[in-house]
Amino acid sequence: MSLIAVGTVAFDAIETPFGKTDKVVGGAATYITLAASYFVKHSELISVVGDDFPSAFLADMKARGIAQGGLQIKEGEKSFFWSGKYHYDMNSRDTLDTQLNVLADFQPVVPEEAKGAEYVMLGNLDPTVQMSVIDQMPKRPKLVVLDTMNFWMDIAMDKLAAVIAKVDVLTINDEEARQLTGEHSLVKAAQKILKMGPRYLIIKKGEHGALLFDEEQVFFAPALPLEDVVDPTGAGDTFAGGFIGYLAHTDDISFQNMKRAVIIGSAMASFTCEAFGPERLMSLTTNEIDHRIQKFVDLVDFDIILVE
Amino acid sequence: MSLIAVGTVAFDAIETPFGKTDKVVGGAATYITLAASYFVKHSELISVVGDDFPSAFLADMKARGIAQGGLQIKEGEKSFFWSGKYHYDMNSRDTLDTQLNVLADFQPVVPEEAKGAEYVMLGNLDPTVQMSVIDQMPKRPKLVVLDTMNFWMDIAMDKLAAVIAKVDVLTINDEEARQLTGEHSLVKAAQKILKMGPRYLIIKKGEHGALLFDEEQVFFAPALPLEDVVDPTGAGDTFAGGFIGYLAHTDDISFQNMKRAVIIGSAMASFTCEAFGPERLMSLTTNEIDHRIQKFVDLVDFDIILVE
Repeated sequence: MSLIAVGTVAFDAIETPFGKTDKVVGGAATYITLAASYFVKHSELISVVGDDFPSAFLADMKARGIAQGGLQIKEGEKSFFWSGKYHYDMNSRDTLDTQLNVLADFQPVVPEEAKGAEYVMLGNLDPTVQMSVIDQMPKRPKLVVLDTMNFWMDIAMDKLAAVIAKVDVLTINDEEARQLTGEHSLVKAAQKILKMGPRYLIIKKGEHGALLFDEEQVFFAPALPLEDVVDPTGAGDTFAGGFIGYLAHTDDISFQNMKRAVIIGSAMASFTCEAFGPERLMSLTTNEIDHRIQKFVDLVDFDIILVE
Repeated sequence: MSLIAVGTVAFDAIETPFGKTDKVVGGAATYITLAASYFVKHSELISVVGDDFPSAFLADMKARGIAQGGLQIKEGEKSFFWSGKYHYDMNSRDTLDTQLNVLADFQPVVPEEAKGAEYVMLGNLDPTVQMSVIDQMPKRPKLVVLDTMNFWMDIAMDKLAAVIAKVDVLTINDEEARQLTGEHSLVKAAQKILKMGPRYLIIKKGEHGALLFDEEQVFFAPALPLEDVVDPTGAGDTFAGGFIGYLAHTDDISFQNMKRAVIIGSAMASFTCEAFGPERLMSLTTNEIDHRIQKFVDLVDFDIILVE
């Protein structure tokens, strides 16, 4: 089934307690479409870059079936740049620098050939931009997944709430779920969020895994304990890309299949953490992915004997 | 199989962002033996209290099969008292007050009838006290489980290392695993700790679940997302009590059975979080426990279809 993804395609500069990197390719839509490309043969990238963005990288994405009819390349302008530094726990980070550049006045355009897409991934961006993508779809897609962050809750809550009301799945982290609802308990927060519009909620907890809620059920996907977490940047986007890529591939949006998709997303995200930038995510084999998924199966596998 | 537990029997006063309680019964060995009592008909409590400790509570414990031949009651002295305040995340806390009282010169005595015990739980205490219990056992028990905390790493690392070298299972939290080894990666930390003596390591992550390691395998047990976490005090001890109680009951210390024991411990701990003090833990039915364990089964249950 057809998939479109909107989000940043950008440069990052990252510092962790264990290493640092100069400008590398990053951006939510980069990770989303690359992760999804292992599950769908074709996707549509909706984003904007400056003329400083490497054309070889775009060509590589195209070779992976990531169509770029919706990618605007602005001559004489610079791509979005983000720089951040991770704390020792690798779960939290400070932004050192943000240069919006081409993103400042980004007006997304969904290409004609992508307007019938059934799976839509709205990567973290200004909710106005996210809404514009929804508004351009002539028919309601089968599944719209929204990623966002506390920044938009702080400065554009009304607009964000309007987008949340229109999507099927919301993905946020645990602190954001608490901020969005004023509830400390994630169970209560989930109940409130599911009344705001989405049918499903995914709470991402980084190295502590992810929770999937619908109105009646909850599923927990662990994160794989890794020998080395080099750089978690893009892990959440990779998760989203693996998640929606698997759903689009199987074209099944039941809770049962969403659970599988959350495991797939978690497995894909674990690869992204193993290197700076999308490097590791771009070198995977099907065999490696299957092997990694099997590790998730084994990690939580137990049989129980109830108390007599 | 016979079980002994050493640890504090004490009073706690607890404040959380959502409530507070005056002095309630607490203490590691209290939670350990109460949790274990759902799985073993008999256990031996090794601890010390002052004459201020309620005899009705001790009688209740005795009625649950918790023998007190190793419980010293010091006339004219006061029981150990701890007071703490939880942060908003409910995963970290500050100590407001610690009054050692009877604990200051506690010399544990293993009663004759308990010296053949095959399952030994060393609750969090001065490592010298923990070592004294091991030394009093004429024959090496089948399984010795050690709980400890960063406090002892800070002030008595050599003595703690000597105890760690003698036990089969170590239970600590993620920050303590990092402190003990100087490794940020929990996988690497586990590898180092398993070279220090224990055959198994359990890393407790509070609301984020628990990891069980041996030299070759890793298992992850989730924590159940709760509607309300009232007070996590004693949850780690309850976990330990459920864990060793189940192992003693089944008398099987394979990795396969340890996985079950970790789930059982997690299920028991989830009850403790639902009220201040050991109240909730003392009112459980077998049916409630089975129902709770089933929730853990459901929480991580998925079937996967690998990538084609």
